[in-house]
Parts: sequence; C-alpha cells; structure tokens
Amino acid sequence: MKEENYTLLCDFYELTMANGYYEMGRHNEIVYFDVFFRTIPDGGGYAVFAGLEQLIEYIRNLHFTEEDITFLRGKGIFSEGFLEYLRSFRFSGDIYGIREGTPIFPGEPILTVRAPAAEAQIIETFVLLTVNLQSLIATKANRIVRAADGRGVAEFGSRRAQGAQGAILGARAAYIGGCSSTACTLSDREYHIPASGTMAHSWVQMFPNEYEAFTAYCRLYPNNAVLLVDTYNVLESGIPAAIRVFHEQGIEKGGIRIDSGDIAYLSKKARKMLNAAGLPGIRIIASNSLDEFIIRDLLSQGAQIDGFGVGERLITAKSDPVFGCVYKLAAVEDESGRIIPRIKISENTEKITNPAYKKIYRIIDNESGQPIADYITLADEQVDSEKPLELFDPISTWKRKTVTNYTARPLHETIFSNGRCVYTTPPIDEIRSYCAGEVGALWDEVKRFENPHRYYVDLSPRLWELKQKMLENDGKPE
Amino acid sequence: MKEENYTLLCDFYELTMANGYYEMGRHNEIVYFDVFFRTIPDGGGYAVFAGLEQLIEYIRNLHFTEEDITFLRGKGIFSEGFLEYLRSFRFSGDIYGIREGTPIFPGEPILTVRAPAAEAQIIETFVLLTVNLQSLIATKANRIVRAADGRGVAEFGSRRAQGAQGAILGARAAYIGGCSSTACTLSDREYHIPASGTMAHSWVQMFPNEYEAFTAYCRLYPNNAVLLVDTYNVLESGIPAAIRVFHEQGIEKGGIRIDSGDIAYLSKKARKMLNAAGLPGIRIIASNSLDEFIIRDLLSQGAQIDGFGVGERLITAKSDPVFGCVYKLAAVEDESGRIIPRIKISENTEKITNPAYKKIYRIIDNESGQPIADYITLADEQVDSEKPLELFDPISTWKRKTVTNYTARPLHETIFSNGRCVYTTPPIDEIRSYCAGEVGALWDEVKRFENPHRYYVDLSPRLWELKQKMLENDGKPE
Repeated sequence: MKEENYTLLCDFYELTMANGYYEMGRHNEIVYFDVFFRTIPDGGGYAVFAGLEQLIEYIRNLHFTEEDITFLRGKGIFSEGFLEYLRSFRFSGDIYGIREGTPIFPGEPILTVRAPAAEAQIIETFVLLTVNLQSLIATKANRIVRAADGRGVAEFGSRRAQGAQGAILGARAAYIGGCSSTACTLSDREYHIPASGTMAHSWVQMFPNEYEAFTAYCRLYPNNAVLLVDTYNVLESGIPAAIRVFHEQGIEKGGIRIDSGDIAYLSKKARKMLNAAGLPGIRIIASNSLDEFIIRDLLSQGAQIDGFGVGERLITAKSDPVFGCVYKLAAVEDESGRIIPRIKISENTEKITNPAYKKIYRIIDNESGQPIADYITLADEQVDSEKPLELFDPISTWKRKTVTNYTARPLHETIFSNGRCVYTTPPIDEIRSYCAGEVGALWDEVKRFENPHRYYVDLSPRLWELKQKMLENDGKPE
Repeated sequence: MKEENYTLLCDFYELTMANGYYEMGRHNEIVYFDVFFRTIPDGGGYAVFAGLEQLIEYIRNLHFTEEDITFLRGKGIFSEGFLEYLRSFRFSGDIYGIREGTPIFPGEPILTVRAPAAEAQIIETFVLLTVNLQSLIATKANRIVRAADGRGVAEFGSRRAQGAQGAILGARAAYIGGCSSTACTLSDREYHIPASGTMAHSWVQMFPNEYEAFTAYCRLYPNNAVLLVDTYNVLESGIPAAIRVFHEQGIEKGGIRIDSGDIAYLSKKARKMLNAAGLPGIRIIASNSLDEFIIRDLLSQGAQIDGFGVGERLITAKSDPVFGCVYKLAAVEDESGRIIPRIKISENTEKITNPAYKKIYRIIDNESGQPIADYITLADEQVDSEKPLELFDPISTWKRKTVTNYTARPLHETIFSNGRCVYTTPPIDEIRSYCAGEVGALWDEVKRFENPHRYYVDLSPRLWELKQKMLENDGKPE
C-alpha cells in the first residue's frame, strides 16, 4: 500500500506549466510555495494538522514510469525534451513543515516548499490532497472527542468514506485527533490504529432470536461482548436477552450498543435495567449518525452513554467537508540566489497572500504554558525572547499588545533537505498524545464550538511592511 | 493501481462475525444481502448509480495475503481454523446489480449478493464504500451539469478530494454524471477520463507581468490557450493583456478564466471587451467554489459564461457529502436450498427493510418512453407486460394506478455467477451517454432541484404481503 505511485495524481495544468518552464529553460529556477488555509471548518477556533507522513511517502516515491511517459506523449502537447526530463524526475528541493497533531490557524504557512519550479509545481495537487484530507478529519475528530468529554469515541465510518484512502487515512487522522479506535482493519495493519468491532444486525438476523445470537457471540468472544440490542425492540427484547446472556455466562464487563431510536431515552432506561440486573459494569455504547453537536446534546440530556461509535459524520466531516489548504507562490530566487518575494493580489481580499520566504513561531506564555499567538517572520529574522515582543493585528494595526516572559517556539521542522528526507515521523501514539497536549494548552475560549475567540496570527513588522509595499506597488517588491 | 488489494479494507466486525460463523460451522450457509439507499442527496428526485467497475475489480482481487493472516493472528481472537480458511478465501457467490449510469431510487435493491455467509459479510464494507463514493459524485455531477444547461463542466477538485481515490474515482463518477473533463491526470491514464488544464496563478506570477505570462503560454499552447485573468485585476490588467496576446498571436478560439470576484458582473464586462476587440470566439470560463445552485443563479443573472470549472463542491458533494447505501440481510437458504426471507425491524420506520430475494423492473410507458415507476418483485415473479399492471403505494395502499402499454425492463444484470465475473463493463463514454439518456427520459418533475416529484418505487402484491406478514409476526416469515 505504501508503495503506491501517485505521481500522476496531479492536475493536468501542473504538467502543462512544467513543460512550459522546461521549454523556456526555466524549470530549475528556485521557487518557494506556501501551503496554508483560510477558514477553519465548522467555524471552529483551530484546526489540527495531519497528513505529513503520507506527504513524505509520496515525495520519496515520486517518479514517472515508462507507462506514465507513454501516456503523456499520447496527449500530443509535451516536448520530447520534457518527457526525457520526466524520466529521471525526482524531488530535489527542501520542505519545511509543522509536526502532525499541531493546532494550526488560518493564513500561516503550514508547509513551505523550496524547489526547482517544475518540481514544486508537479507536487502541488497531491501535497494539498493529503494534507487537506487528514487535517479535515483530525480536526473533526478532535471536536467530536471533546464533545464526548472523556468517553471513548470509536471511528467506524469506512463504508461511507469518500473512497479507500478516505477510510484508511481518515481512520489515521481520526486517531490523531483523539479517537480511541477504528473499525477499519486495514488502517490497523498499515498504521497501527487499533481496530475493534463486534457485530452487525445481520449477525442477530442469522439466528432464530436475539438470545441465541448473543449466546453464540459471548461464547466466542467473552472478553469483547458488546451486543447490538436494536434489531427488533431495544427495551422489550434486545436488553432482556442481553441481560440473560450476561448472567448465564457470568459476563460483567461487556457492553450493549444502541444504533437507532431515541438514544437519550433508551440509554437511561437501559442503564436502569442493567443496574437492576446487577450489571453496573456493562457499558452502553451509542451510535447512529452522531457528531459533536448530537453528542453534546445527548450528554446534556443526561443520556447514560459510556462510549460512542461515530461513522459518516466523522469520516466525511459531513457538516463542513472541505479543508481548504492552498499552495501559493511566495518567492523566487534570481540567478544570484537572491530571494525575490511574490504576492497574489485578488479582488477577494481574503485571497491576498503573505509574500516571501517565511518562518513561524508559536509565542508561549512561560507562566501558563499557553500559546498567546503565532508570529510569522521573514526566514532570516530571529525572535529574541529575552526582549519584549510587540504583536499587532495585521489588518487593524492599532490593536497592539506587548508580551514578555515568553518562549518563541519555531514551528517549522526541516522535512526534506536537497531532496532527502531528514525527518522521522513519530509513532502514531506519540502524535496522538502530542495533539492532545497541544490542544489542551489552548485557551478554552479558542476551543468553544460557537463563536470561538480568534487566535492571533501576527506578522513581524518587517514582513508586514514588505506586504504593504507590494500591495501598494501592484505586487512588485520594490 | 487496479491491482490494489483492499481485502482488509473491511470493518473489523465483519471478521469477528465471519470467524464466528466459521467456528459454528455456518460460514457456508447461503445468504442474500441487498444494497440500497434511503435518502437522495440534496433532496433530489433521483440518484445516479456508479462504482460497479471498481466493485468488480475488488471482488476479483479478493484474497488474504500471508501478511494479512499474520496480522490477524496477532489480534489473538481468530481461530487457526478460520485463519487457514482465509488463506484460500475467494468470492464464490453471485452478484446481481444495476448498470452504472442508471437513475436509482430509495429502497430498491441496487445490488443483491448471494453468497456463503462469511464471504457475503467480509465484502460488505468495500462494496458499500465504492458504490457510495461514486454514486455520490455521479449524482452531484449530474445536478451541476444540468444547472450548466449545455455548457461544459470541467471537474477539477482533486486537491480538495477526500483522498486519492476520492480524486481519481470521483473524476470517473463525475464524468459518468456528465462532466466533460477532469483535471486529474491519473484518472485519464487509468479510466480514460479526458484530462485538461491550462495554468495556475503561479504561472502568471513567474513572469514580470500578465502580458509576458500569456505570451509565453500562447506560444507553447496556441490550441489550448485559456488564460487566467484574475491574478491582479480582471478588467484593468488581465483581460487587456489577454486581448493583446490573442491579437498578436492570431488566436481566435482560446479562452479566459475568471477565478475570483463577482463572476456575473465580470463575465458580462469581459464578453463586451472581447467582442469589442473582435474576439467573439474567445470563451469565458468561470470557476471559484461553484455548484448547481450558484451556476443556476449566475445564468439567471445573464452571466456570459461558456464553461465552468467546478472543484471542491463537486468532488466532495459538499452540500450533502454522504451517500447512504446500506447492506442488509434479505434472506437465507436452509439446508434444502429453500429461501427463507429475513427482515430488520427498527424503531425508526424508515430503517425497516424489504425482505426476500428480489428483482426489480423499470416500468416504461411505451408511448412516451418515460419510466412510470420501479417495481420490486420476489425473484421468482414474472411481469407479463401483455397484462395491465396495478401499482400501489406500499405505505398509502389506497393510492393505486393501473398501467397498460408498458415495458417492464429488468434492471438487474448478473455480475458474478458462482464467483466468476460474467459482466463486461462498457467503455466509459458508453456509460456516460447511457446516463444522459436515462436521466433525459425521466419526467421533468422528478428532475427539479426543489421539491421534486417522488418517483414511485412499488412492491408487487406478493412481496408486499410477505413484508406485512413478517412485520406482524415479529420478523418471522410464517
């Protein structure tokens, strides 16, 4: 699976442009592209970055096969010189990026690619695709897990995922975001996301009645006995049958799952029935089109639920299913290696880019350990945390704040250097714990579901002045 | 790509259930599962079925590798006998299904799987996944194409797709639904979906100004000269530069693309400027977060647009991103081969299934050639179109209608027979034309975006009576 070659999973215009650069002898000009996003899904206060490991696999495996080249030749518009160039095409540039599991905010360069123009262009589509998918699902999962307030959330949306990678990598991203397990077996084999699962309605239907179905199941899996109780009638047949089987087989630590009906009502009734039967250790799992809003609502109604199974609304991020990372030219190098910033001006103000080769710092209050703001600088700037740092809003510049006693944590790690991967992806559990810690450190105001506080993403004075100058000068830096 | 092994892309519970059937010696009992959906996305009047070709590839390639078996053994809950059984596991059953590109309606069996219990269970997740993804996107694309009212719609959402398959197979499904091309190069190589594309903003930014960027592009691609005119200012710099280059290079059949700003206003201004410059043959392409609603709105405002590029809202079906096909047990065979129907009763009425092994007919009015209703029967029933057919609403049974002079077209084709694929997927262009014809034949009332007429999906009297009896009898057929 990991050896999949997605080199041709690129927009066709990447190839027409790359061929153009090649034909003009410009394909090796060094360019800088930033990956950033503009809007947090679901109106949230932060997103969770994920997808870097798959980006690394993709870049490492980047090459055009003979079949690819034959196919491209057949399009009739690429020069033989360019096709020959593709034959030995590899990524030879640098990539800087943020660790997976880090909370990220609009407008900041999550990744910066420095590479020859043709290479930087060809990788655009897949880089965005993989970062967009996993950041979308990690962000959604993190919201759902927070709503569950300490209860486990099992991801089981594979069947409704938008394709195989949506299921497999969606499960990975959901785990990074805080889910406790997945139903997707392949995601366990490939990415060590713990797979779990018990029975479908069809199991129950294969037996004359629920009692026989549950009896058979508990004999097979006494340590994993979560019984689906809603095939016919939850309170009248499903739970009584489950209780009888738990008693007969001496199972005290199993569970029941309710997948339809009024979950709040049924779970409270179920809890009473189980407790009255001397089965307080039997857990109640709820499923059926859940998301963070329904879960919060269920818990506020006093639903007696110990864990959630969440499917389609998580694995597609149904309420806001697009993560909008873009890939924008930020600078080019001239023949002498001087970095010339580039900007994209747009009639839609929010589409104007931050120019230049940049770095990003998370400014952390030393007393509370909580992040105060992200601070974007030109790449050659240093933040001296011994000195007070004045932050100002890049739009409403009169809004200013001076911070002292802080740490300026650089967020960019070097992922690729001269085409060589120099970064090691941490084990998945480490990414997941890191995410929980980083989200935990955010102000509660930033974590609200409704109208969260906007986390500051500020520009250094030098970067801000450069951008203003370019805006006033029709996009030219001087 | 096509050789990908997704056997382990199954919910873990499929394996716990299959192991259970194996341990009880029931894994070879013959079962019937139906694939159907309950709700049409976006409140539409019909959906478009797609994904069968990938389902076939999956089934053909179904097998557990040694690595898979070692992985499963490590879970510590599967018997050695079962793991040995998986070593030679193949699909040996039958699959009946509807042709890709066919309009489909809630509640009808799009696919019926007849197979040994363990096999039928293990394939559930992937069968749903692939049908759900492509039916979702084909349905959405078909809506968008209808809104475009004869203008071409290019799919270019790869970067925002939910994973690689979402992009590649999404492009395939969008083409079936009526899109004219894709940006996804790999979908062209794999599935012959015509890939197209011209330039990104980065191309323009790589030059000192738009004039030089467009000049270079048109020299390279005089026959594919669609110039992106909104990098700085559409009316003041982009279009004037494009006109100058079209004139200088004698290009009369190119295009311009507008990707931001007020598209209705800008396109009208652009059309006037191009016409005034003697360039009536230059096409205007619009993009920027379009969908069927925005396109219809743009056209109703008189926007001068000749073609659309549609990205994220198509490739994720953003406004309703889940296609909800389910996989439900409909019958089992006893030792003598007698088919015993099964039903799932639910406290949510819409979750009650249609029992038994069934077939489906599209009842077509011979005079108009338009479908009147779909008619679901027990598998052993024949519809004799020489006789009048009485249709009745399965819920409001007093609503009755007798049709004469009709054709009863069976919708199920045999896809697999005893594990062998006996169906040949038509070429993609044939599927696309078929879809256009089938959608074209539907009543306009069914094709409305808002409050469409509900197309009738009726049950034969024998099937209806069986279902009633089972509902009254706690799910038992007799």
